[in-house]
Amino acid sequence: MLDFWFDFASTYSYVASQRVEALCEAAGVKLRWRPFLLGPIFTSQLGIKDSPFNTWPVRGQYMWRDLERLCEKYELPFKRPELFPARSILAARVACVAVDKPWCGDFVRGVFRANFALNKDISTHAVLGDVLSSLGVDPAQIFPLAESDPGKRQLRAFTDEAQTLGIFGAPNAVIGKELFFGQDRLEDAVAWAKRSAS
Amino acid sequence: MLDFWFDFASTYSYVASQRVEALCEAAGVKLRWRPFLLGPIFTSQLGIKDSPFNTWPVRGQYMWRDLERLCEKYELPFKRPELFPARSILAARVACVAVDKPWCGDFVRGVFRANFALNKDISTHAVLGDVLSSLGVDPAQIFPLAESDPGKRQLRAFTDEAQTLGIFGAPNAVIGKELFFGQDRLEDAVAWAKRSAS
Repeated sequence: MLDFWFDFASTYSYVASQRVEALCEAAGVKLRWRPFLLGPIFTSQLGIKDSPFNTWPVRGQYMWRDLERLCEKYELPFKRPELFPARSILAARVACVAVDKPWCGDFVRGVFRANFALNKDISTHAVLGDVLSSLGVDPAQIFPLAESDPGKRQLRAFTDEAQTLGIFGAPNAVIGKELFFGQDRLEDAVAWAKRSAS
Repeated sequence: MLDFWFDFASTYSYVASQRVEALCEAAGVKLRWRPFLLGPIFTSQLGIKDSPFNTWPVRGQYMWRDLERLCEKYELPFKRPELFPARSILAARVACVAVDKPWCGDFVRGVFRANFALNKDISTHAVLGDVLSSLGVDPAQIFPLAESDPGKRQLRAFTDEAQTLGIFGAPNAVIGKELFFGQDRLEDAVAWAKRSAS
């Protein structure tokens, strides 16, 4: 089993989110989606209220070019969002509701595409509702669950668990206590999960 | 042509340094070794006087585990150095003398192994002299060149050029103005260099 830890605002999580399920399926590895928020982690670990890609501009400039190249490599559509980082809390709360649903993967991939391929504002009910509707899921049934107290607690619990796992960025693949950070480690992580299961 | 930019104190540069020449040779890509110092870059860009892996402990803890796994993957010896980051200025000055010599690759790989596989203090003339001697190169001829004013100026010039290229860490592979950061981008960079040459 492999847990995929992501924040919808994270650029490299976009690339990984489009690839991880197919990689796991090909390897016969069970995948669990694990949304969390990077914001509290950056604040706690670095004392910043923004993405390190914004606070460290030379690093950020490279990331956008690197992301563009990666999207070409994996044949993923890419359009640099006007707003970065997106406010991802509502999308993450919906994902908390979705984690055990069969449409979770499609929802996660759809929200990431909305952010990084379509330049849509994923903080809004309208954009997230469109993604849900496109999957045949009724937004009016999901949003109340996502924004309920138990829904909010679930996202806080995932974010706390991420900190406990030693997470400091996104995306991550976790097998047991073994942490693989970054889109670049997906293949290694899936191979590790496959070995661990056998 | 591919320029490999590295700092002898950089952990991921160790892994990349052992792999880059063979990858370039297999692809028919000419390799140039480009030593520089990360210290002035971190100070200028982040205002810190230490490695980000030390100032951001959660990030650093992961890096050591990740490095260990990478060394297993590429079958490289690894022993965590007691001193990190190593003081790499003398080794970098010697590498500046070496860049056009046929023994440069062996010297670079040897110093990295001394740091990350043998836990030796690469800031010393003794350790660097042993590496040179093992290649049949006379340390007494090299150190005076490395520590001369032109030798020192060459390292400052490389470090300035690294900043101009948008470098913010190590290792890097640069083809023209195209920057590839990280050990994880070596294969992509070599493929880019091969395409650019054809």
